[in-house]
Amino acid sequence: MADTKPLLHTCLSPALLNLYDVNNSIVVIIDVLRATSTIATALYNGAKSVIPVDSVAKCIELGKKIDSITAGERDGKIAEGLKHGNSPFEYPREFIEGKTLVLTTTNGTKLMHMALERGADHIITGSFPNLSVVCDYLLSRNQNVLLGCAAWKDRVNMEDMLFAGAVINRVKNHFSINCDSSQIAATIHSDAREGLFEFIKQKNASHYHRLSDFGLEKDMKYCLTADNAAVLPFYEDGKLVVHKYLDNI
Amino acid sequence: MADTKPLLHTCLSPALLNLYDVNNSIVVIIDVLRATSTIATALYNGAKSVIPVDSVAKCIELGKKIDSITAGERDGKIAEGLKHGNSPFEYPREFIEGKTLVLTTTNGTKLMHMALERGADHIITGSFPNLSVVCDYLLSRNQNVLLGCAAWKDRVNMEDMLFAGAVINRVKNHFSINCDSSQIAATIHSDAREGLFEFIKQKNASHYHRLSDFGLEKDMKYCLTADNAAVLPFYEDGKLVVHKYLDNI
Repeated sequence: MADTKPLLHTCLSPALLNLYDVNNSIVVIIDVLRATSTIATALYNGAKSVIPVDSVAKCIELGKKIDSITAGERDGKIAEGLKHGNSPFEYPREFIEGKTLVLTTTNGTKLMHMALERGADHIITGSFPNLSVVCDYLLSRNQNVLLGCAAWKDRVNMEDMLFAGAVINRVKNHFSINCDSSQIAATIHSDAREGLFEFIKQKNASHYHRLSDFGLEKDMKYCLTADNAAVLPFYEDGKLVVHKYLDNI
Repeated sequence: MADTKPLLHTCLSPALLNLYDVNNSIVVIIDVLRATSTIATALYNGAKSVIPVDSVAKCIELGKKIDSITAGERDGKIAEGLKHGNSPFEYPREFIEGKTLVLTTTNGTKLMHMALERGADHIITGSFPNLSVVCDYLLSRNQNVLLGCAAWKDRVNMEDMLFAGAVINRVKNHFSINCDSSQIAATIHSDAREGLFEFIKQKNASHYHRLSDFGLEKDMKYCLTADNAAVLPFYEDGKLVVHKYLDNI
C-alpha cells in the first residue's frame, strides 16, 4: 500500500517555499542555530508561550504592550532595544517559567511568517533538542509533511539540512518521498550521524565559523544534541505553545 | 596564502541565483540530465555551435531564420514544431558535424538566460562528459567560480549537485570555499563516487524516475560517465562554441 502513504518534502531555503504545498501539510520550521532550539528550550523550561516576530521593531513594540521578555540578536549581538539574546542558555527554568518570550531571529521567524502568509495552518518547530518529539508527532499523524529549513539569508545551510535528514532517517518508512532535497538531507545526515558538531566543523560549515567567531561553541554543541528539551512547539493564535498531544500518549 | 585563492560557490537552484555574484565569476551552467551533456556531445562531434533558447517558440522562429537543427523536448517527447530531441545519442558526428544546433530545454537554457540577464559575461557549460576539461579550465584561470545547477523547475536535484561535487572534489584545494551548498555537494559526490548511476537509482532521485519511465537508462548512464566529450562549451555572441584554450595547452 505504498501509494497511500503521506508525502514528505524538504524545502532547503525560504526562497524555494513557493514550490511546496504548505496548505495541506504539517510544516516543520527548522532553524537549528539557534532559533528553534531556543524556542524548544524556553517552552521546555516552562515559558507560557513564545511569540515569533519578524523584526526588531515589532519585538520592541510588542514588548511594550504585553508583559514579556523581548529577545533577538543581529550579527551575534543583542539587538538594540531588546533585552535578551538567542542563546538557549539564556532561558533556564528559574528565569523563563511562566513568562512570555517575544523572539525575533534572522531566518527562522522569517520562514514561519512566510509559511503563514502562504496559508499554512499546521506549524510546529523542530530542532535537535526536540528531535524525538517531532518524529513521534509526525508518525502519530497520517498527514503530509514539509520540512522547512530556515537557511541563512536564503542560502542553503548544513545544520538545518542535517536536522531534516535526522527526521527523515527516522520516519522515512512511513512516508512517500519523491524529493531529491530530502534524499540529499538523509544522506548527509547518515554521513554525519557519529558526530554532528565534528561534522560541521570538519566540513567548514559557514554557520560554524560565524558562531565560533562569537564564542558560541557551547551553544552549537547543545543545539546539535538530541532530546534535551522534549516538547512540541505548536503554532496557535500567533504564539508557539506546548502541544498537548504529549499528555495523551 | 589561503586568502588570495579565488572563491567558489554553488547555486543549487535558479531561484537562488540572485544570491550570488555572477558578474565577477566564471559561471558553470550544469544540467546533467541532459542539456549540458548533449551540448558537450554535439560540440565534441563537430557541431559548429549550439544556440540555447529558452522557449519552443523561439527555437522554431530561429530555425526558420538560419540553417540549423532545431531540438527540444517537453515531458520526454520532441516538442511540437521541432525536429529533434534532447538525447546526446541523437548527435553523432555523421549527423551534427559542421551544423548549428538550436536547443531548448526546460531548465538548463533557462538558467543560462537568467545568468546572462544578471550580467554574467563568462559562461561555460559543465557535465560529466566534459568533467575533466571543465576542471582543467577552472584550474587554469585564477578567477572566482559559480557552479550553477539548473535543477528541475527550481527544485534542487541530485544529479546536478553530484556534478558540482565532482568538480569541487577535484579543484577544492585551489579555491576558498565558504559555502555550505558546495560542502554538501562535495560530500554527496564522495558518497556516490563508486557508481553515480547506482547512487541516483538507489537514492530514488526524481529525475531517475522521470527518465527511466521514458526508457532513457542508456542516456542516463552516458550522462553520468566522465570524459567522453572532452570539449569546453563557451558562451560567446549568443552561441556556445568550443573554447580554443584547449589548443594552447
